[in-house]
Amino acid sequence: MSRRLIAHLAHVEILTPKPEESLAFYKDIIGLEETSRQGQSVYLRGWGEWHHHSLQLTEADQTGVGHIGWRTWSPEDLTTAVARVDERGAGEGWFEDSVGHGPAYRFKPPAGQTHELFWESEDYVPPAGMQSPFPDRPQRYVPRGAAPRMIDHITVMSKDPVGDAEWMRDTLGSTFTEYTMLHEDSDLVVFAMSTNNEKSHDLGLILDQSDVPGRLHHFAWWVDSRDELLRAADVLMNADVDIEFGPGRHGMGEQEYMYFREPGGVRVEINTGGYRNYVPDWETRRWVPSQGSNTMYRNVAMPDSMMEAFPPAEPALDHHEEAANPWSAASVH
Amino acid sequence: MSRRLIAHLAHVEILTPKPEESLAFYKDIIGLEETSRQGQSVYLRGWGEWHHHSLQLTEADQTGVGHIGWRTWSPEDLTTAVARVDERGAGEGWFEDSVGHGPAYRFKPPAGQTHELFWESEDYVPPAGMQSPFPDRPQRYVPRGAAPRMIDHITVMSKDPVGDAEWMRDTLGSTFTEYTMLHEDSDLVVFAMSTNNEKSHDLGLILDQSDVPGRLHHFAWWVDSRDELLRAADVLMNADVDIEFGPGRHGMGEQEYMYFREPGGVRVEINTGGYRNYVPDWETRRWVPSQGSNTMYRNVAMPDSMMEAFPPAEPALDHHEEAANPWSAASVH
Amino acid sequence: MSRRLIAHLAHVEILTPKPEESLAFYKDIIGLEETSRQGQSVYLRGWGEWHHHSLQLTEADQTGVGHIGWRTWSPEDLTTAVARVDERGAGEGWFEDSVGHGPAYRFKPPAGQTHELFWESEDYVPPAGMQSPFPDRPQRYVPRGAAPRMIDHITVMSKDPVGDAEWMRDTLGSTFTEYTMLHEDSDLVVFAMSTNNEKSHDLGLILDQSDVPGRLHHFAWWVDSRDELLRAADVLMNADVDIEFGPGRHGMGEQEYMYFREPGGVRVEINTGGYRNYVPDWETRRWVPSQGSNTMYRNVAMPDSMMEAFPPAEPALDHHEEAANPWSAASVH
Amino acid sequence: MSRRLIAHLAHVEILTPKPEESLAFYKDIIGLEETSRQGQSVYLRGWGEWHHHSLQLTEADQTGVGHIGWRTWSPEDLTTAVARVDERGAGEGWFEDSVGHGPAYRFKPPAGQTHELFWESEDYVPPAGMQSPFPDRPQRYVPRGAAPRMIDHITVMSKDPVGDAEWMRDTLGSTFTEYTMLHEDSDLVVFAMSTNNEKSHDLGLILDQSDVPGRLHHFAWWVDSRDELLRAADVLMNADVDIEFGPGRHGMGEQEYMYFREPGGVRVEINTGGYRNYVPDWETRRWVPSQGSNTMYRNVAMPDSMMEAFPPAEPALDHHEEAANPWSAASVH
Repeated sequence: MSRRLIAHLAHVEILTPKPEESLAFYKDIIGLEETSRQGQSVYLRGWGEWHHHSLQLTEADQTGVGHIGWRTWSPEDLTTAVARVDERGAGEGWFEDSVGHGPAYRFKPPAGQTHELFWESEDYVPPAGMQSPFPDRPQRYVPRGAAPRMIDHITVMSKDPVGDAEWMRDTLGSTFTEYTMLHEDSDLVVFAMSTNNEKSHDLGLILDQSDVPGRLHHFAWWVDSRDELLRAADVLMNADVDIEFGPGRHGMGEQEYMYFREPGGVRVEINTGGYRNYVPDWETRRWVPSQGSNTMYRNVAMPDSMMEAFPPAEPALDHHEEAANPWSAASVH
Repeated sequence: MSRRLIAHLAHVEILTPKPEESLAFYKDIIGLEETSRQGQSVYLRGWGEWHHHSLQLTEADQTGVGHIGWRTWSPEDLTTAVARVDERGAGEGWFEDSVGHGPAYRFKPPAGQTHELFWESEDYVPPAGMQSPFPDRPQRYVPRGAAPRMIDHITVMSKDPVGDAEWMRDTLGSTFTEYTMLHEDSDLVVFAMSTNNEKSHDLGLILDQSDVPGRLHHFAWWVDSRDELLRAADVLMNADVDIEFGPGRHGMGEQEYMYFREPGGVRVEINTGGYRNYVPDWETRRWVPSQGSNTMYRNVAMPDSMMEAFPPAEPALDHHEEAANPWSAASVH
Repeated sequence: MSRRLIAHLAHVEILTPKPEESLAFYKDIIGLEETSRQGQSVYLRGWGEWHHHSLQLTEADQTGVGHIGWRTWSPEDLTTAVARVDERGAGEGWFEDSVGHGPAYRFKPPAGQTHELFWESEDYVPPAGMQSPFPDRPQRYVPRGAAPRMIDHITVMSKDPVGDAEWMRDTLGSTFTEYTMLHEDSDLVVFAMSTNNEKSHDLGLILDQSDVPGRLHHFAWWVDSRDELLRAADVLMNADVDIEFGPGRHGMGEQEYMYFREPGGVRVEINTGGYRNYVPDWETRRWVPSQGSNTMYRNVAMPDSMMEAFPPAEPALDHHEEAANPWSAASVH
Repeated sequence: MSRRLIAHLAHVEILTPKPEESLAFYKDIIGLEETSRQGQSVYLRGWGEWHHHSLQLTEADQTGVGHIGWRTWSPEDLTTAVARVDERGAGEGWFEDSVGHGPAYRFKPPAGQTHELFWESEDYVPPAGMQSPFPDRPQRYVPRGAAPRMIDHITVMSKDPVGDAEWMRDTLGSTFTEYTMLHEDSDLVVFAMSTNNEKSHDLGLILDQSDVPGRLHHFAWWVDSRDELLRAADVLMNADVDIEFGPGRHGMGEQEYMYFREPGGVRVEINTGGYRNYVPDWETRRWVPSQGSNTMYRNVAMPDSMMEAFPPAEPALDHHEEAANPWSAASVH
């Protein structure tokens, strides 16, 4: 059992072809706080986050994830992590010019997204009048929209979810918590979860049957309660935002979910709840859909649109790929 | 910054002079599950806990805490932790005959309670019919009473809360998260919090102005939501159990609290909520009561009975000591 | 605008071919309190209800609703109501031998279920030890299972939902709150709601395309919060009870829903939330499914099984009738 | 048992010496919607209310309640109600020039506040872009601050709370639900509740030991859940608004409460929960404080500041009057 080197998911860079609309959505509907802007990027965060940003929103020709940033537990752990990544031939070198944190070592695990590891990190400094009355909070709580407290996780596409979860485990000490099969008699794993803390996952891995590497499925913001998630659903409906899937509860990890799209096209989740798992020698759990891996209540079909990833595969998914939706209407109950 | 060696608070041993009444209370009102009995002890756990027990309830002449059990993150970390404890002269040797886990190294930090460190741990095995339908849960959810998911933290008395929090940090890699002063102009710290994970604390330390070493203040069970905590308050009131303090919300750590006594006399808390803190280089926060350290709403006086610890100091607290209640009616607002 | 003559839905009589299993389910899983037994019936109620019973569970050859009991606002209103019912030729005479209440006047509105009106009502008397510590509650709160506070509404089948809602309005002064069309361009109303208080409905009316009169669709128990409803869902799943539909939120009335079957076969709902409507001259609202009449989030298909009513129509529903599910997978979004 | 003539508490007129600050507070912190302005008044409402306004905020030299508006159940009931009020010699004549509703008959019950009865009422019309996507809601849900759904109740001072509750009952058909004594052995009633619907009260009556007639104690806004109330508490604390009392739960009526002051000085409550009482022949309940009339948890002292009413009595309350706080620190437990 390898020791964990990563402290937490620090930030994600999301690509949008509609930067103005996306920014307005993240600020007004989701309710993030803007920290700064530079080049083609705007830097944002949830009201409860202590660091400079957790979302870098970047203008781009098409949707997708620019990179995924992980903060290590210590400077020594950064050194160790970089060496491990290099051993596996996944390293891509240091990136010096980040906004809000120090030098970052970029790497590309088999799933093909760009990740980075860093230690030095800039604290968020609230503007005048927004200093928190409570010493343990980074700013005042003045909620807008869904008003999530913090980023929760990112879920990406992979040709081999189990292989990638094991890669994170063996390279960086993450815990491979749970995975689910396509169906009862299948040997195809369609979803795997990896974590660096008490949550079920800060990295999700979904089977990609296309040949486009490095795609994004969604990323998630955390609210404090199930009641706040339901309140957020009301906020979305009243802002004419379609809810793609949810509110509901996943069996895996026991988390409440709600998925929707931001104007650039990327799928965003608001989630809450879930178990708190402090077991260091956790035995990876295997699920089949009939046990409620996707929906704990086993009675809701996941729409096929949920199989879309970013950037989208071209040409459009054929019938074979749609078959990979293990949670379609046909398979419920 | 030292690396964390402890995975989580595994269990506490609580002493009660009324074993039958206490056991009935933990099972029927709080809603714990009994795993086994041996000697003068009964072993219990919350429905969501994967290990053999988190509470060892032991018959004794007087109330108090028998010992506090911590599971290390790995067998190597156990070796390291034992060496560190020994370096500091706090070691008390191996204890081989535990129920539900392997050899445990006992030690006594300055505050004077007995702690133990262990690695080998026995999983909970549900009885027939209680196997969970969900692969990531240890048993069926069949709630009784308050029905907490798991143990949360223990808070003990100390002659030097800051010194003890630093001792845990420097010896075992815990994080010293927050502390509060007696009042605005005082240099007396009355409460300090230490943690091994994303919560504000799994170990609380309250200033003890008596000369009785190793005393207990309370220990806490975690429910999933603020709504469940309020439901638990209704359960307690309808079982004719006085609620000593709460429901309310602490400023420190942002957790919802509710304190009451079990029949043996020990103070028990049910709590929920709080921030999720993944910051590895967290700077310890300093509070004064007027910032809401005890009650975030700054309008509730903590009753003086909350200053009582276990075993009680004899003779009873004099007026001087009562002055140590930084959250008395006189100091609110 | 007619004055309301009915105070509230007092009780429903539910028929079950499996009386033992049904009774155990209502007591252990739903968490009702048993008041008494007589003949083939057991009388039950939610913990927060002040009267003798709200559920009469009766052994019968097939599932269905025995009768629906309404308490009038006053003895004078009973007289008025009986006269009105008789004027419309729906009266069936006085029924003198009820358990838990006085003489009841039975009648049959066009939808064909048996209803009754009464005034004299027996209070619930808690057994020794169960007297409430709070003067405004009928008994102690000692929750089991879902533990609903009280009955909420009953929904029955009708050949003419609008006609029946108008019948209740014109005869008894109920408010016809809302109805929904089969689809955007249809002139077929598939669901209508009638109420006697601030809730959206205490009587629901669903279009019946079979020729079996007087059928039941479901009846509902009310819990205090959305969080308690989600907790109840967990209770059901862990008791191996399939949840037929939900948890979710209806657009009409804004209520949170969850439907399942009791062992005898009848569909039961647990619900909460919803608007509080005190408008005496409320203008009946018209919905189309695309506005979210069934699911406020407009993204969940109601399963066809939800079209089943009690007793079931024989022979089984043909394809034509299934088309009457306005909320099938095909019609979502 | 008299029939209820009142449909609901329609609006209150609140007097403020700081109209600008008060208005900003109601809009930004509480989160009300402004409908219109006229003369010295601004008209506001909660997002879920169907009528023109529920709060008339009026500039005045001192704090207090201008008048309390009740809508009758029908035009006939208005006629009946006016006759009843006149019979009792409390009538003050018709007031024709109201904003948002038709002719109102003003009257003054013994407690001395000005009330009015009316039937004709103007619906709220949302501005462009704010039409609700749901047919049963008056506008879009775009929450700001605490964002209450609607007005809940008003509580006023009275020399004879029981007498006034009986006056409302005997004159207008309200239900006198509950009252509480000063203490166990007292024959002094310090609080009584009157209602026109399923809630415990839409009119509260607190014993006034001053000689100033017609004073206001507080008025309340309703949020949908306990979780939203706790969220509102966080909003207040982060806006540097002191919470005078709460969050907590009253035993009487089982409602969650939180009291604070708006900038003009008036006490405002946000509340939720409570029983739903449809019993037409409800027997008025008697409480003593030790049963939890004020705080269901029986462990929180109400601050003496809660005895202040509007306009304040001059000279300041003497010691005798403070004794009228039945829920002071001295009386807890």
